[in-house]
Amino acid sequence: MNKPETFPNISITTGPLPASRKIYISGEIHPDIRVPLREISLHETAKEPPVRVYDSSGPYTDPDAKIDIDAGLARPRQAWVMARGDVEEYAGRDLRSEDNGGATGDHLVAEFPALKAPLRAKAGKTVTQLHYARAGIITAEMEFIAIRENEGRSEVAERDGEDFGAEIPDFITPEFVRDEIARGRAIIPSNINHPEAEPMIIGRNFLVKINANIGNSAVTSSVADEVDKMVWAIRWGADNVMDLSTGRNIHNIREWIIRNAPVPIGTVPIYQALEKVNGVAEDLTWEIYRDTLIEQAEQGVDYFTIHAGVRLAYIPLTANRVTGIVSRGGAIMAKWCLAHHTESFLYEHFDDICDIMAAYDVSFSLGDGLRPGCTADANDEAQFAELATLGELTKIAWAKDVQVMIEGPGHVPMHKIKVNMTKQLEACGEAPFYTLGPLVTDIAPGYDHITSAIGAAMIGWFGTAMLCYVTPKEHLGLPDRDDVKVGVITYKIAAHAADMAKGHPGARMRDDAISRARFEFRWEDQFNLSLDSATAKDFHDQTLPKEAHKTAHFCSMCGPKFCSMKISQEVREFARMQNDSGQSLQEESIAGEKLSEAEAEAGMARMSEKFKEAGSKIYLDKE
Amino acid sequence: MNKPETFPNISITTGPLPASRKIYISGEIHPDIRVPLREISLHETAKEPPVRVYDSSGPYTDPDAKIDIDAGLARPRQAWVMARGDVEEYAGRDLRSEDNGGATGDHLVAEFPALKAPLRAKAGKTVTQLHYARAGIITAEMEFIAIRENEGRSEVAERDGEDFGAEIPDFITPEFVRDEIARGRAIIPSNINHPEAEPMIIGRNFLVKINANIGNSAVTSSVADEVDKMVWAIRWGADNVMDLSTGRNIHNIREWIIRNAPVPIGTVPIYQALEKVNGVAEDLTWEIYRDTLIEQAEQGVDYFTIHAGVRLAYIPLTANRVTGIVSRGGAIMAKWCLAHHTESFLYEHFDDICDIMAAYDVSFSLGDGLRPGCTADANDEAQFAELATLGELTKIAWAKDVQVMIEGPGHVPMHKIKVNMTKQLEACGEAPFYTLGPLVTDIAPGYDHITSAIGAAMIGWFGTAMLCYVTPKEHLGLPDRDDVKVGVITYKIAAHAADMAKGHPGARMRDDAISRARFEFRWEDQFNLSLDSATAKDFHDQTLPKEAHKTAHFCSMCGPKFCSMKISQEVREFARMQNDSGQSLQEESIAGEKLSEAEAEAGMARMSEKFKEAGSKIYLDKE
Repeated sequence: MNKPETFPNISITTGPLPASRKIYISGEIHPDIRVPLREISLHETAKEPPVRVYDSSGPYTDPDAKIDIDAGLARPRQAWVMARGDVEEYAGRDLRSEDNGGATGDHLVAEFPALKAPLRAKAGKTVTQLHYARAGIITAEMEFIAIRENEGRSEVAERDGEDFGAEIPDFITPEFVRDEIARGRAIIPSNINHPEAEPMIIGRNFLVKINANIGNSAVTSSVADEVDKMVWAIRWGADNVMDLSTGRNIHNIREWIIRNAPVPIGTVPIYQALEKVNGVAEDLTWEIYRDTLIEQAEQGVDYFTIHAGVRLAYIPLTANRVTGIVSRGGAIMAKWCLAHHTESFLYEHFDDICDIMAAYDVSFSLGDGLRPGCTADANDEAQFAELATLGELTKIAWAKDVQVMIEGPGHVPMHKIKVNMTKQLEACGEAPFYTLGPLVTDIAPGYDHITSAIGAAMIGWFGTAMLCYVTPKEHLGLPDRDDVKVGVITYKIAAHAADMAKGHPGARMRDDAISRARFEFRWEDQFNLSLDSATAKDFHDQTLPKEAHKTAHFCSMCGPKFCSMKISQEVREFARMQNDSGQSLQEESIAGEKLSEAEAEAGMARMSEKFKEAGSKIYLDKE
Repeated sequence: MNKPETFPNISITTGPLPASRKIYISGEIHPDIRVPLREISLHETAKEPPVRVYDSSGPYTDPDAKIDIDAGLARPRQAWVMARGDVEEYAGRDLRSEDNGGATGDHLVAEFPALKAPLRAKAGKTVTQLHYARAGIITAEMEFIAIRENEGRSEVAERDGEDFGAEIPDFITPEFVRDEIARGRAIIPSNINHPEAEPMIIGRNFLVKINANIGNSAVTSSVADEVDKMVWAIRWGADNVMDLSTGRNIHNIREWIIRNAPVPIGTVPIYQALEKVNGVAEDLTWEIYRDTLIEQAEQGVDYFTIHAGVRLAYIPLTANRVTGIVSRGGAIMAKWCLAHHTESFLYEHFDDICDIMAAYDVSFSLGDGLRPGCTADANDEAQFAELATLGELTKIAWAKDVQVMIEGPGHVPMHKIKVNMTKQLEACGEAPFYTLGPLVTDIAPGYDHITSAIGAAMIGWFGTAMLCYVTPKEHLGLPDRDDVKVGVITYKIAAHAADMAKGHPGARMRDDAISRARFEFRWEDQFNLSLDSATAKDFHDQTLPKEAHKTAHFCSMCGPKFCSMKISQEVREFARMQNDSGQSLQEESIAGEKLSEAEAEAGMARMSEKFKEAGSKIYLDKE
């Protein structure tokens, strides 16, 4: 099913998912946009239309798309960006040896072969989606997102969620997208130099999104692995990918990733800046950092994690913590601040940073450098002091038309999660919250995708707009391909559970479709509708491998005679027969108090006879 | 580390867990009781005492215990039961062919070789823990539990949880246990015919417990597998095990399991009763069911799931559900009721059932036969109608001194979980709630341990006393050994997260110990303190296999130069140096507003110098 195609040195998985085909919906305001959706077809006995789901996998699951890793993906956004007439092509910064950590010879990853000159805003222009939104312009990106978020729905399922003050409409209109962007309540990470990306939105009034982290480290991993992991992560549903590479070859690896990424790519620029000063935090300067921002903005990074809230005065607040500072970026800045006993250059130069980001439409992901690294440190003074500063910085960025989201923890026991969301909404004016889990206990290394999915689902329900995944390897090692998949699926669960609980109008449709398939023993539909059909099918086959069992009206849990679903179908069949004969089984019962006892008994007697007649026919023999 | 020992046809895993030894604490009221705890030793550099944790694994992890599956475990409770002078030994019911589904020859599982005559209450006596508690008697079981629940703690960690009206004391006393039992707010599943079991308690004011389901089915599995799964499940932390076997050999498999089980065993007697009528629900009778209850009570089953709340009038309420009735027991009873158009014999004979259970101290687990089978059906009229009846039955059982817990769903989206707990507490007078998950979404078969752990952690926090695990195979197949382990670990996470959030006085200790180990790069301690040390170590070794890395002050995520934990330690070291020189870094900062700017700057300058001196020495070189 998954057709592997091999490119020089890079092997990725392409092809559609089981029973799925990609469809595209065109825009009305912008007729040239093609919004991808995945349609999962059902067995003919279902008598149901295909189920449409959000599709973050990009051209890799489209059999008609030509995939050439060396050329990069097609660039649909290029025309939209150029049509706005506010950007200019320029030569861009020269690649320097330190951009790749001084790697040479065999140690140097090949440059991406099809480099293009970067774009930037013309002098005096701002090219951010926030700028356009405030000017009343519905961009192609905004219309794309409106269509995408509706998932091809034509109806609204029952909405009974608790949304804690979010305002999710029944259908997303382009105008609603514009308004939410203008309000600062959502962002579209969309660097003008990443035209390969399919627009997506992060905000509490939209579907909860997930981010997957990839990246090599000084210790392990390579470019082929990272491109493969990116494609693999979006295949399973990652909406965004952060490249957290450290060590050598950062620049070249990132170029390969971005040119082949149909999702926004985020980075933490301080990692590369630190490499440029050979890992000595004290040697960092604003000039080196600034140069790194421009380098990465030219490549097309869509959002930067910037730990500008780690102020000098907050650092000592962490001294008595159980695990101190656990954010890498936060720790680097803490060390810099202490070594120079001066305020963070990120904080001091925040205006300058905004100006750079505005010229490319890079979004802020304001980093929580002082987030708790264990449940014992959750919600402490250091964490909330930084959050207040992130709120202050949000207003500065907004004043400069730069899009902002806010990063959050981390490690938080369940009873302390809600206040994180409440404080963030207050402090940051509803700028989207983007949390890492949180893990709700520290006692299960090896299972931290689970300890964190509990917290992620809850905080997503409370209003967090994007959840950064945690893989089983968290705290222990770098995730491999399998870990990436488990992390993504686990976080799709958390995000979807949050959508359900918020009462998102489309969230229930997939659940209900799979529940119907389960009830009707449409095993293949159940597999195909699940987040990971291959695993579901494999688990079923381990107990009942025969092909005939895929249509069996029982399963391995109970065997043929015991199936409660089967018995329930008989109850329903019985009800249907009663309806056919003009007597509603359900009405008789629900209104039971109004019927006389004799009437009710007579009804039950009729049902009973019918049931016994039907029951004997419906049972299947044991195989 | 896990020493496997092989017995005829049955292979189980025994021996202590890594860095762990079993200790026993004696009673004061009852000096002969020996309460097991696991002590996890830490590296000498930790300068911390061993961490004591709850230990459900029984003699299997005690290298001094002689394990002989054919003889069964030692019977510590036998003397306690006999000493009360209210039971009598009797011949018991004869084994019949139908008890094992008519299996013969090679198909018949061997009888357990060391059968003993059963006990029952003497005429006019009630032998339940609830009876004793109400009489003001602190039984050996109650004192055992008081010691066990305190986990050898001598101090109370910070308690900042939200417990929603639970009343968890700092330390559990035998009198508190007695009072909670008398109140009906907790149960001790402890059939007098299961003297092998180590007493444990289920109630909202105690540690949240977990149950693991095992059992063969008509389709697959064998006795050796089931005994092995039981031992395996408790090794990883299962507090209770339910034997959900169906098909042939139910009686003999159960005997092997109980005789070797140091944890309470639960069953669903209707499964075996149905086998006795060849799987035809309509042919069930009260007499067959009653006989099955006695058969199982004599064997030593500690709690029975009884779906006495599935009343005739409620069944039609399920007709329009997406997935109807999904409880096996509920479906069987529904079919029986409809076929006979008469009220459930379980409901009609509830008094008689109570009398049987009182004679052996079997606890009720009042089954939720109408629980929702998908999120669409959550919290519907059928579910809550049954819950009201379970509340009514609870009062009847209590009047007869029979212990009761209440089963709950199932499939519930997050926003509908809380009301389940609230209604249960109201309807059932705070009788312990025992839920299956709930799953918070239906779209991830293959990952339902995760979809359900989210709901389980939440409902555990809200007050559920025991969580029934869900394995990755849920809805797809029967769990194998690996699935059992993943299910148990996942539910230990959920239960522990709930304890943390409730503010259980001992819950934080293990989290904080592992967090300190993490911060101090005590990798082995981190592995040993985790719920699954082998997996944690394996994940670490996949990236950094060398033995030297176990003591390295960095890990694979960041590499040597980048470690934020390392930098945090420097911040702390810096703070310590300041303290040594009479200046508290923290005080200077926290009270920063009170210092003049000049003073603060001078302080920072001093810190900065010290930090730079220390910083260069502390870094490790790359390997």
